[in-house]
Parts: sequence; structure tokens; C-alpha cells
Amino acid sequence: MAKIGLFVGSFDPLHNGHVDVLTRAATLFDTLIVGVADNPAKNALFTLDARIQQLTDTLAADNLRVVSFDSGKLTAKLADEMGATALVRSVRNAADLELEKRLAFYNRQLTGIETVILLAKPELEFVTSTHIKELARFHGDITPYVPAAIAQKMKEIYEN
Amino acid sequence: MAKIGLFVGSFDPLHNGHVDVLTRAATLFDTLIVGVADNPAKNALFTLDARIQQLTDTLAADNLRVVSFDSGKLTAKLADEMGATALVRSVRNAADLELEKRLAFYNRQLTGIETVILLAKPELEFVTSTHIKELARFHGDITPYVPAAIAQKMKEIYEN
Amino acid sequence: MAKIGLFVGSFDPLHNGHVDVLTRAATLFDTLIVGVADNPAKNALFTLDARIQQLTDTLAADNLRVVSFDSGKLTAKLADEMGATALVRSVRNAADLELEKRLAFYNRQLTGIETVILLAKPELEFVTSTHIKELARFHGDITPYVPAAIAQKMKEIYEN
Amino acid sequence: MAKIGLFVGSFDPLHNGHVDVLTRAATLFDTLIVGVADNPAKNALFTLDARIQQLTDTLAADNLRVVSFDSGKLTAKLADEMGATALVRSVRNAADLELEKRLAFYNRQLTGIETVILLAKPELEFVTSTHIKELARFHGDITPYVPAAIAQKMKEIYEN
Amino acid sequence: MAKIGLFVGSFDPLHNGHVDVLTRAATLFDTLIVGVADNPAKNALFTLDARIQQLTDTLAADNLRVVSFDSGKLTAKLADEMGATALVRSVRNAADLELEKRLAFYNRQLTGIETVILLAKPELEFVTSTHIKELARFHGDITPYVPAAIAQKMKEIYEN
Amino acid sequence: MAKIGLFVGSFDPLHNGHVDVLTRAATLFDTLIVGVADNPAKNALFTLDARIQQLTDTLAADNLRVVSFDSGKLTAKLADEMGATALVRSVRNAADLELEKRLAFYNRQLTGIETVILLAKPELEFVTSTHIKELARFHGDITPYVPAAIAQKMKEIYEN
Repeated sequence: MAKIGLFVGSFDPLHNGHVDVLTRAATLFDTLIVGVADNPAKNALFTLDARIQQLTDTLAADNLRVVSFDSGKLTAKLADEMGATALVRSVRNAADLELEKRLAFYNRQLTGIETVILLAKPELEFVTSTHIKELARFHGDITPYVPAAIAQKMKEIYEN
Repeated sequence: MAKIGLFVGSFDPLHNGHVDVLTRAATLFDTLIVGVADNPAKNALFTLDARIQQLTDTLAADNLRVVSFDSGKLTAKLADEMGATALVRSVRNAADLELEKRLAFYNRQLTGIETVILLAKPELEFVTSTHIKELARFHGDITPYVPAAIAQKMKEIYEN
Repeated sequence: MAKIGLFVGSFDPLHNGHVDVLTRAATLFDTLIVGVADNPAKNALFTLDARIQQLTDTLAADNLRVVSFDSGKLTAKLADEMGATALVRSVRNAADLELEKRLAFYNRQLTGIETVILLAKPELEFVTSTHIKELARFHGDITPYVPAAIAQKMKEIYEN
Repeated sequence: MAKIGLFVGSFDPLHNGHVDVLTRAATLFDTLIVGVADNPAKNALFTLDARIQQLTDTLAADNLRVVSFDSGKLTAKLADEMGATALVRSVRNAADLELEKRLAFYNRQLTGIETVILLAKPELEFVTSTHIKELARFHGDITPYVPAAIAQKMKEIYEN
Repeated sequence: MAKIGLFVGSFDPLHNGHVDVLTRAATLFDTLIVGVADNPAKNALFTLDARIQQLTDTLAADNLRVVSFDSGKLTAKLADEMGATALVRSVRNAADLELEKRLAFYNRQLTGIETVILLAKPELEFVTSTHIKELARFHGDITPYVPAAIAQKMKEIYEN
Repeated sequence: MAKIGLFVGSFDPLHNGHVDVLTRAATLFDTLIVGVADNPAKNALFTLDARIQQLTDTLAADNLRVVSFDSGKLTAKLADEMGATALVRSVRNAADLELEKRLAFYNRQLTGIETVILLAKPELEFVTSTHIKELARFHGDITPYVPAAIAQKMKEIYEN
């Protein structure tokens, strides 16, 4: 039976930490589905379509499938519909771990879905979408943290 | 390409936490190799052969392969020889996480091997071989923590 | 002198983690007072009266006294008025511990009141009112986490 | 029914952190039993009798009972024999908490005994028998951390 | 070359934890600059001018320079303009540490500025501006935590 | 008055994490004293003289002074004799922080000495002397973690 992983996120913006963990996760499964949250209530920097395009443009693995999902749906149910073998999550520190233990507990109880954790690389541990946006808002240099095309787009957005 | 996981341990004794995590890990890979440490210097409760037999007798998944390995060998090199896609590890708490971050860092640097973390179920979080042996030494009841046949064997050992 | 414990909370809803810790706490004191927060500003799922009734209906210990308290009052002062020997709190993890250390510090300084910590059982560690409400909102199954009558009431509320 | 707490330790030496937590614990129970570990294998600084005497001399609470216990016995079984309502433990930090969660889990499973945690006062958080002995060995000043009579005795011991 | 430290904060209100850490930090540098955040959007208890005056009145070290800064500016850039050798930060616990690791990472990448951590004294670990304001709002006694003049002013504010 | 930092360690072997933190620490003080532990009881890989030489050869900062010290002496007293303004320590994670809080507490109480913490860079967080020696013993590649000359020497040692 094909092994299918599901990694969900907002990817707003996609950053080098995402790229690293998705590239590594893709080696673990026959197919890795990347679910991009469609959350109209959250004021996203990039549109859903732009984020899907950025993922497709950036990621090289050929067993990736990028899909959108309604953020009002439980991840465990999404995994069920997709026939996923496991949810894939990235953990950086003890606070992340506590969150993931709770999410894994509820997701297992809901549909029996397994959760697989990858550890963020130390040098990417502090790279998060939230901090990158904050940095861009202050006109700090974000090029070490995001793919070049996205850095360029963000520069344009925050300069206006 | 076949996805192969490698889970190493001493399994001295095999306990319900092991059984749970190995059963779950087996669903994630085409083959899950269980490596049993051969460490003559460490005064093991059960012989290497007994531990291999206990794993084989207890685990139901049909894609498991139980092998012994020389504990004087780096796990990353063992994974390389076995053609493993990833090491599988179980994490219970923040202290475990720190250890696994360090191990994953060195293993990735040594051979590029990926590490995959499964989270221990909360109700099995405190079940470890060390505590079970301590409990048995004090003639406490270990039947809730280990497979029945192993509990029986340990009772015999510690009663003498 | 009678030993009196005080456990305060919102109990919105009362869940199995509460039931376990209150049952255990009741064995430690001559009387255990359960203080239910009356916080009109917070948009509670159940009314104050309903929550008091649910506690009374669910808990079997006969040395419990369920009272309401104004959430605009310092807990240490409530304990003082009630003649409590100690505040009772439940801790699950390191983040809880940090919070409780701070609360215990201020409460001791305010009135000298002692704080007693009980540890949540591992299998109930992730059961919180917040997550149960979130689960119910997504129409997930909450029956493993709350008393049956409350699960039924919540199902009715979230189905409308 | 009388509420009886049991606090066990080596008290080698008794220090101000012990005195604080025992004094506070004594207010919570009708009787607080202080169990002093008799562990001939461990090379103690003070004899069992000296440690019992020091506890009796130092502690003012009149509902304390100081007893020795064989350190080769499970604490949960000692509590059972003593008719204790609960074990009392002191916690300083996250590492302590992990240890206590595991101990409480096994003790509850062994005999159903409850564990009650008191939080060390911040200013006493770093005061441990191990560090006091290390300090004394280097001829550092230990008088801020232990009762005066014990500081005097330790000074004599380490000067020779 | 002169060694210059920069410590930034809101100091709303200045409390004994601040006073302790600033006094200790002043011994480490030829000059310690204390940057007071000017954040009109945040509804401060004391005006910027009042907070600067309180710092000047309270702190005895003669190598301190108190300045205001626009909270819309990155701290690393402020440090650059001021010719600071290092940012100085105070850490109490593991949660603080995670935050500081991330801040130090970004600040180093932005301008190469070094971050120096001082550890809060245990007995001041729970003293924060947020908790002092909460305590004052409930008419609790804040005199153990803030300089006398500030305690007096806060009492007047919250009594009205 | 000159600002003098003191950083003590075994440096057995000196690794890239040491080099980074010493280089950064040297910018904070007029003089940074590097104290190398002379501990004959501990079976060191390199002799005291070799370690001092390696530090001198590797570190470029011209305000460093490398000295040996008797590991049987309290660090706080060494700092006192050296006229140090502060002890400098490196912290990687929560476990390190707990240790440093305790050490800083005792050192401050012994002689009033201040402790200054630098945060290890994330990519060097797992580089420790213990792990490098373990890696070398297994004939793993240590060149990413230690200065080239030391890597060469260690290779020779462990090949024999």
C-alpha cells in the first residue's frame, strides 16, 4: 500500500524552514501532500493561489502534491479523506513538543491517524513566518530566510 | 523505492511502550527493521537471543524484521548498511527531545540519514525498561507494563 | 482543626480531568470547597447555575462544597474568607508549573495561603475545557472526555 | 478520619529548604510523618540517629513524627504500612516535575497512594544537600543554607 | 574602546527586578544605556517622561544614561546608532530563554550585535510589571516589589 | 576600571563552539581570561599544556589571556584572585539554564561575582567535547566541529 504523508500549514510566507522540512519529508513517503490553509478570516499576506504557486515553484521533489483545504475542517478528517498514512509535523523546541503531543493525542482519538515528527535543523530553528513578516515590516533583510522570489515580492509589499 | 525504517534499542525487557511504538511505526514503512543491541559489557537481564525471540513472539505486524547489531557501531552506519530510509525514535518529554535533537544532528551529518519521531502515548509515558526492572526488584506488580510472558519470566528471575 | 482545601475554576465544561482531580483532592481534606467562577464578561457555554449543578450531580465525594465566587476577586482573599488551609491546583506539564510557581508566590505573599499541587494523570493530561469546546465545534466525539450528561448537552448546543 | 502526610528523604544534611517545606507541609495534615532513609550502602555525612535528632531539634511543629525507614523498601509500601493519606514531595523546576510525575504514576499504581506537591520557595530553590556538601568541602560559607547547629558540625567535619 | 551596554524596556512600572538587573548590568560596562520604549499605541500606566524620571530618581549607578526610543524601531538598529557593544537582557526561566535565543539570533543577523544575558535573582523571578499592575488593580500590596515612590503613585492611581 | 571577564573550561578538546563563544566574549571585555582546568584525576585526552597551546594557537583576539587553574578551587574564588568583573558562561538549552542559575546563585553568594551568559549559536548547539570524543572513537568525521590541527591530532590518537 502506498505511504502518503500530509503536511498542513499556512505558508504565509513559505520560508527556508518549510522548504527544508518538506524536502526531507518527501523522502519518507511515496506521496507527500502539502495542504495549504484557506482561511479568509485571517488577513493573509499572500493569496491562497499565490501560496500554492510559490510552493509548486520552489519545491523540487516530484512526489509532492499541493492542495488547498478549508481551515474550518479538522486536520484528522482531511487526512482521512486524502487517505493519508500519517500527519507530518515539524518540531523546534519543548513548547512545540507540548503542542504536538496534544494535537497528536486528539488526532489519533478522532480517526486513528498517526503523527510523524521531523526535527527542525538548528540553523533554521528561529525561522518562522511570523518573524519574517515582522522583520520585513521593519525593513530588515529577509533574504537569508525565504526563497529569493518571495523575498523580492515581500520587499515590494512592505515598501508600499 | 521501498521505504525502510530502523528502530534500535536494547529491549531489556521489551515493554508495552515498545510494543505500541513499534506497531505504530510498522504502519509507516514498507519494512520496519528492529535492531536489538548486542552489548556484552552491559549486564543484560535477558540474553540477546531471548530478546530477539520475545520481539518476534510479541509483535504481530508482518513487515517487521528483527536483527541484532553490535552496540559498538554508530547507528547511522548501521542504517546505511541496511539501506534504511529513516531512523525511528520515540519521544516522551522535553528531556527526550533535547537528546533526540542532538542524535539527529550527528546522524544527519554522518550519513545524511533522516530521523522520524513518534510520540509516546501519554498513558505509556512512564513505562521504561529501567523502571520496570526496578519495580520487579522490589517485587512490585509489573504485569500492566510488559507482555504477559515477559512478566512471568521476570517474576521468576527476581524471586530467586 | 479541620483541614479545608479550595479548588477554583470555570468548569466550562466540567471534564473528566476535573472529576479525577477533585475526587483525589477530596480525599486529602476534611472539606474540599469547589469555587466556580462567576465571570459575566466571559461568554460561558454553560450558565453559572448549570455548572454548579453539573458539579453537584457528577461528584460523588460527600465532603465537597460547591460555591460560586466573583472572578473579580483575588483567589487568596477568597481562600481567606472561606477559612481554607490551602489552595489546590492541578499541574500537567512544565508550562503549568511555571504558572503555578508564580501564582503560589503571589498568593503566599498576599495572605500566607499555602498551595498544594496534584499531578494530572497522564491519560487525562490533554483534556482541557478549551480543547473539548473546539472539538465539539468541529462535531468531533467528546464522549471520552466529559461526563455523559454534559456530552449530550454540548452535542445539542453545537448542533444548533 | 485523620489526614496523615508522609515526607521521605535522606536529610544529609537537613537544610533550610527542608525546614521550610516540612513546616508548610505540617499545616496541611493532622500528622506529618518524616521518614529518614536508612541506607548503609550510601556513605552518609551524618549517621541515621544524628539526622533524626537534627530533625527533632530543628522542627517546631508539634504534629510531626520522625521515623527511619529501610531505603530498600518502596515508598508506596511504607506509606501503606503507616496509614498515610498522601506522599508529600517538593518541586523546584521542570526536571523535578518530570521525576515526580513518574514517581507519582508508579506509586499510585502500586498502592493507590496520592502524591501532593509543594513548590519550593524561589529563594530556596538552589539549596540542596548535594550542593551544601560541595560548598563545605571547598570551605565556602554554608551558614545561609542550614540550621546553625548543623553548619557548625559540618564545619568541624570538613576542617579535619 | 569603551564598552557600552544597552538595556531596553517599557518600565511601566519600574520594579525591583529591573532595579536589581540594571544595577548589576551597570558594573559590566563603561556605560549602560537604558532605553525606555515610547509606544503611544500601548496604553501605558505612566507617561514616557514619568518613567524616565523614575529610572533617573531610583538608580544610583553613575554610568547610566536613560534615553527614550521609538518602539517602532528594531532594537538592533537602535544599538547600532548608539554604538552599543551589546544588548543586555534578563532571563528568568526556560520560556524566557527560548524568546531570547530567537531575539539574539535575529539581532545578530541584522547588525552583528552581541546579546548578553543576566539571570534574574530567584527571589525576584516572579516580579513583573504585568503582575504588579494586576495586583494593584485588586488592591493587593505591591510595596515589596516596586520602589516606594512608585508604589505610592500606583496606589493613588488604582484607588480612583 | 578595566572590565575583565573569566571563562573557565576543560577544553578537552577545544571545539568550534568554544572558539565562537570566546571570540564573541572577547569583544565584551577589556581582557578575557580563559581558565583551563588542571584536573589530574580526570583522564584528559590532551595534556594541560597542549590545551593551553591549542587555545593560544587558535584564538585570534588580542585581549585574551590563557591561564591554567586548579580544578579543586571554587571558580568564584579564582575570579576573585584574578580581579574578574564577571564570569562568562555559554548556554544552549533549558537544561543548561537550570545549571547556570544554580551556579550563578552560589557564586554570587560566595564572593558577589556577577555571571554573564552568552547564547550558543544554533548551528553549534550540539557541538560538545564529549560528543566529539565519542564521534572520534567511532571513527566519525569530526572536522566540521573542531579546528583543523586538533581534528588531525585526534584522528592520530584514535587510530592507534
